[in-house]
Amino acid sequence: MSENLIKPDLQAMGKAAKEAARQLYRLDTATKNSVLNAMAAALREAEAEILAANAEDMQAAGHLDQAMQDRLRLDSSRLDSIAKDVENVARLKDPVGEEFDKRMLQGGMNIRRRRVPLGVVGVIYEARPNVTVDVATLCLKSGNAVILRGGKETLRTNQAMAKVLKTVLREHNLPEQAVQLIESPDRELVGQLLKLDQYVDMIIPRGGASLHQLCKEQSTIPVITGGIGVCHLYADSFIDLEMAVPVIVNAKVQRPTVCNALDTLLLHHSIAPDLIPDLAKSLAEAGVEVRADVQSYPLFEALNYPKLTHSTHQDFGTEFLDLILSVKVVEDIDEAMEHIAEYGSGHSDGILTLKTDHAERFLNEVDSAAVYVNASTRFTDGAQFGLGAEVAVSTQKLHARGPMALEGLTTYKWLVEGQWNVRP
Amino acid sequence: MSENLIKPDLQAMGKAAKEAARQLYRLDTATKNSVLNAMAAALREAEAEILAANAEDMQAAGHLDQAMQDRLRLDSSRLDSIAKDVENVARLKDPVGEEFDKRMLQGGMNIRRRRVPLGVVGVIYEARPNVTVDVATLCLKSGNAVILRGGKETLRTNQAMAKVLKTVLREHNLPEQAVQLIESPDRELVGQLLKLDQYVDMIIPRGGASLHQLCKEQSTIPVITGGIGVCHLYADSFIDLEMAVPVIVNAKVQRPTVCNALDTLLLHHSIAPDLIPDLAKSLAEAGVEVRADVQSYPLFEALNYPKLTHSTHQDFGTEFLDLILSVKVVEDIDEAMEHIAEYGSGHSDGILTLKTDHAERFLNEVDSAAVYVNASTRFTDGAQFGLGAEVAVSTQKLHARGPMALEGLTTYKWLVEGQWNVRP
Repeated sequence: MSENLIKPDLQAMGKAAKEAARQLYRLDTATKNSVLNAMAAALREAEAEILAANAEDMQAAGHLDQAMQDRLRLDSSRLDSIAKDVENVARLKDPVGEEFDKRMLQGGMNIRRRRVPLGVVGVIYEARPNVTVDVATLCLKSGNAVILRGGKETLRTNQAMAKVLKTVLREHNLPEQAVQLIESPDRELVGQLLKLDQYVDMIIPRGGASLHQLCKEQSTIPVITGGIGVCHLYADSFIDLEMAVPVIVNAKVQRPTVCNALDTLLLHHSIAPDLIPDLAKSLAEAGVEVRADVQSYPLFEALNYPKLTHSTHQDFGTEFLDLILSVKVVEDIDEAMEHIAEYGSGHSDGILTLKTDHAERFLNEVDSAAVYVNASTRFTDGAQFGLGAEVAVSTQKLHARGPMALEGLTTYKWLVEGQWNVRP
Repeated sequence: MSENLIKPDLQAMGKAAKEAARQLYRLDTATKNSVLNAMAAALREAEAEILAANAEDMQAAGHLDQAMQDRLRLDSSRLDSIAKDVENVARLKDPVGEEFDKRMLQGGMNIRRRRVPLGVVGVIYEARPNVTVDVATLCLKSGNAVILRGGKETLRTNQAMAKVLKTVLREHNLPEQAVQLIESPDRELVGQLLKLDQYVDMIIPRGGASLHQLCKEQSTIPVITGGIGVCHLYADSFIDLEMAVPVIVNAKVQRPTVCNALDTLLLHHSIAPDLIPDLAKSLAEAGVEVRADVQSYPLFEALNYPKLTHSTHQDFGTEFLDLILSVKVVEDIDEAMEHIAEYGSGHSDGILTLKTDHAERFLNEVDSAAVYVNASTRFTDGAQFGLGAEVAVSTQKLHARGPMALEGLTTYKWLVEGQWNVRP
């Protein structure tokens, strides 16, 4: 662990990453895929070293709660699934090289756009042992160099896995600086990374609201912000109650700690009395705390709902990341959409309805990264959306919105082939 | 001018813009086009007021140099051409509503992406009387509200034109806050605008390097940086001298003050002795100062080139914006591409060659927004590239690269239509 005592030189890391990126820029898909498959094999071969490093991390994490410890822990089967994910990345379609908007301009110039790697990507992430490999291999597949800054709780695991990836790069005559890990836990280094605009083309924060805010405020590099989801479902006046209840429950309880989990249920006043009894039963079974507005409270109260409180203003527009649901009765679809525009975070919002004109209006007028009709908000995810992977869920509007995978790690350039043309 | 004494409340402007944007979000193309055509007509009708306001600006600009004064001046024909540009915007294809990547997911969910307006765009620009109308109408066409901050030298002209646009918006029952002008010259307001991330979705700086740097450093809103072009042409070992010379000269002299003008000419050592005599003649006629490296200097000197100096390190990687050209002899295409990677700004770079494999390598390996074969760099422009307009030339890699027009003023959302699907 002596490396941790030497303060990394971020400028030097940035420069090395940019140089490495120039080599990756030229790699063909077959080469990238064979490196990726070699990485998967090498990770499996290095199981002993990686699990030993993880055991050290686990020992240092003895003071953390069980849920956190479980998240940090690697075992043989989890490592195998990380290796499988790398093989999956090798199978994904390579967006680099794709050409579009081909046209002929005046004077016989041929113009087209070609998708190319971004260059260098900086990723700042929480302590999850799979992210290092996941992000590094997605960056490699899209031809980018990456600078990784992971949570300190998995530092030894990250070091062991990065070492494996670097060895494979070297064995394929590729620059090992294509994958660099900031190994010191010094928080100041995050600030330094965010200012490396001379070398780094994009910053992806993967973490909570405060990390995204920090990046937004301090970075001189374009940032993909996101991750915060204040998600709504609106149960419209004409719905299939039997079908609607499982969708609402799924959105709330299937995995409450993630950004696409439901936070606020909006109910049309006409269906609230019919919907709430069935819904309350399922929510109560799942242990959901309900924070009900003045109109819905009596309906839950009449059922002796076990975990019931009066909602306050703070319960709307809040990402609970927990088994808590705020409930509000609205007059109509307009009030529902107004509420979403005011309190939502533009992540995932849906309508449950049998009225096609209401579905249409909701799809047209609600401006969120993912807008749903009759489905759980839990589907907002790169894999679920058929992208094969996910590097981030963007809730900002530039470059990529919603789940972002390989295409989001590319840019394009304009290619112009002339016949000695001059501008008149 | 009493408005100038009241300090604008940027928070209130941002909030009003966001509310206006919600209305614009729903407008159909026909409505937007009829508003745009009405704006063109209204600008022509308001000629007297607009030219009177411009005359006031001109009077206050008496101390500025002639070139600057000419840039600020409006007359009947220039105003007409601004109105014509608005009619052109009305004719452009509306990117909003376009759908792509339509697929069916497991469980019968239909998913697609739909192009939608960004929301609110902030534009900071130099004193050019056409930009206010140009940017405001491109934003309107793409369904965005805009907050404009123009150069103080054209404030009265901008106010007069914004007033016309607002009147037309009101007449069409649209919110006049869709177009807002920051009327106070207080520089602090730029800093405030850059922090309005709660309301503003994108910042476009149109100006010099220092403005772009300021935005990059201070903005908490995504910024489209660009505008700085250190442009190169590489004359390869096998070229058509007669065709190559006019391309080099055009790139340098056709309009030397803009970002896509040539800055550095790289010459293959084998063709330098043949190319320089013809080239020198044309460059000398155009009054170009040549800053020649140690190998090319004697070749210019032998011709008694009138404005010749030895290049210093600073002459490479500099955007001259003037009739100055740095010249360097290189060994081969590799050295040329290395030079461009090191000194270029990723704007516009080209090769002049008759070797198709060299053209191919240059297109593949040079990572600039626009990469040329056998054409002048002066073509990097929205109109020249067939986009019909240009709001910015981006040299960053996210969202939009190179000339950016209506599509760059949009984002997309994911629409998911399910059948009461839940995530397993």
